Amino acid sequence: MTDCIIIGSGLAGISAALTLKANGKNFLLFGKKQLSDKIVKAESIRNYPGLFNVSGQAFCEALQSQLKKEEIEIKTEKVSGVYAMKEKFTVTTQEGGMYESASVILACGVESVKPIEGEIEFLGRGVSYCATCDGFLYKNKKLGVICTNGEMEHEVEYLAELASEVYLVALYKNVTIKKDNVTVIKKMPRKIVGEKRVESMSFASAPTETLPADLPIDGVFILKDSAPPSVLVGGLETENGLVKVGVGMATNIVGCYAAGDCTGRPYQYTKAAGEGNIAAHSVTEYLRNLQK
Amino acid sequence: MTDCIIIGSGLAGISAALTLKANGKNFLLFGKKQLSDKIVKAESIRNYPGLFNVSGQAFCEALQSQLKKEEIEIKTEKVSGVYAMKEKFTVTTQEGGMYESASVILACGVESVKPIEGEIEFLGRGVSYCATCDGFLYKNKKLGVICTNGEMEHEVEYLAELASEVYLVALYKNVTIKKDNVTVIKKMPRKIVGEKRVESMSFASAPTETLPADLPIDGVFILKDSAPPSVLVGGLETENGLVKVGVGMATNIVGCYAAGDCTGRPYQYTKAAGEGNIAAHSVTEYLRNLQK
Repeated sequence: MTDCIIIGSGLAGISAALTLKANGKNFLLFGKKQLSDKIVKAESIRNYPGLFNVSGQAFCEALQSQLKKEEIEIKTEKVSGVYAMKEKFTVTTQEGGMYESASVILACGVESVKPIEGEIEFLGRGVSYCATCDGFLYKNKKLGVICTNGEMEHEVEYLAELASEVYLVALYKNVTIKKDNVTVIKKMPRKIVGEKRVESMSFASAPTETLPADLPIDGVFILKDSAPPSVLVGGLETENGLVKVGVGMATNIVGCYAAGDCTGRPYQYTKAAGEGNIAAHSVTEYLRNLQK
Repeated sequence: MTDCIIIGSGLAGISAALTLKANGKNFLLFGKKQLSDKIVKAESIRNYPGLFNVSGQAFCEALQSQLKKEEIEIKTEKVSGVYAMKEKFTVTTQEGGMYESASVILACGVESVKPIEGEIEFLGRGVSYCATCDGFLYKNKKLGVICTNGEMEHEVEYLAELASEVYLVALYKNVTIKKDNVTVIKKMPRKIVGEKRVESMSFASAPTETLPADLPIDGVFILKDSAPPSVLVGGLETENGLVKVGVGMATNIVGCYAAGDCTGRPYQYTKAAGEGNIAAHSVTEYLRNLQK
């Protein structure tokens, strides 16, 4: 069992990792090799103390180099769930991994794509965030897939191999997938519709020349960088999708802390770094008290 | 009238200044040319995201260069008081300056020297923080002076020119002052004693061969980098000397925010920078609402 699992490799997660490392703690850092799409894409960052007018790319490289020198590795498995047990947590990944830790820091950022109507309502009843977890349920069925990021196209391919039809709402540029049973849609559905389970995706108007505005499906996969925190962590208190935090970045779950964009505005690198630092100190103190 | 006055040039104050600048606000930044003694003296900083294992000196130079490029100047006058009026603040300095602003960010750090017994009790009744403000009250009288920093020796000289005797408790190395009426003491008094007003400084044992443990004085000047926040800002809510803050780093005084070490642990550069960022965003929003 590790001391802490940090979920997210943006400024908050990195800051937490650097501080836990300095404090001599063992931890796992789940994230991306490129750390954060938001950072990489930043044209220039003007108000980060110590780095004048740094480009997102240069900032990202500085952080990657710092992590390397500190011997902090990033685990690129995608976290699918966080389960609070008595004085420990189990963290599962879409790749089938299962990890235990004494504490958790949520630094999973905030989704630029808001949940659409019906998404949360039908979660587990036709809506899924994880292709490899739930894909098998839709063998020879019709699937909607809302994909926010080209890097997740391999999950679309995986689903296309199982399903009879895939209607791919592609929210990214340069769609490369080419399969006979995949229809690419460049409009966002207004809502997910159904009675007991998902029955259709509803668009404001016909999504393509041949498809109806109310498109019948058996299920819909919403592929984004991370699930909403409240879905990731059962029982987590959130407000408008943001994690509620108190003193020392503590959430309502004992041993679970949050930092960065997932706790709310301002969505700023400096703020995220500061909160990651605080959360790591809180974890250090929490671990100290556990041992007593 | 300026949009904001930032008090303190450590990481919190600098971060707030950079963000207010990016947000197009006018502000004054009160602090030191060398920014922060704490930063300058740091051997190496290990957990500041983006700068690997940076020395305090190098960090300080990077920050100074960044401020220069952003055309942010540091006013080196020492703030002596912050007065909250209706929708504005008046800030006074020991040098006699008087400045108005719509908001204030307290980033004055935390004193490593705790108040001694009697200090707060006798404030204004024999205890003063400001030589140039109150020195004239002690012409030809006996003064205790507790000085935390060699840079403030000129204030001791100023007092020595007025008083008949100065008992200088020097909490710094390399005391250079040489005046017949100044006796240097290298022990800290246990407390400041009196009935209605200060009557003596009490030491655990005789502070020098010739002076008594209970040393009669007419007043005592405590010269430190900044007065405690609660003394600086009348009516400010504090707890154990730390500023109480709520959402967005707001204090109990409308328009007055706080950031960095003065709000409490962890005493970390990254945390201070994060809080300065948040406070600056709160000020920006506060100013927006004022204009409505």
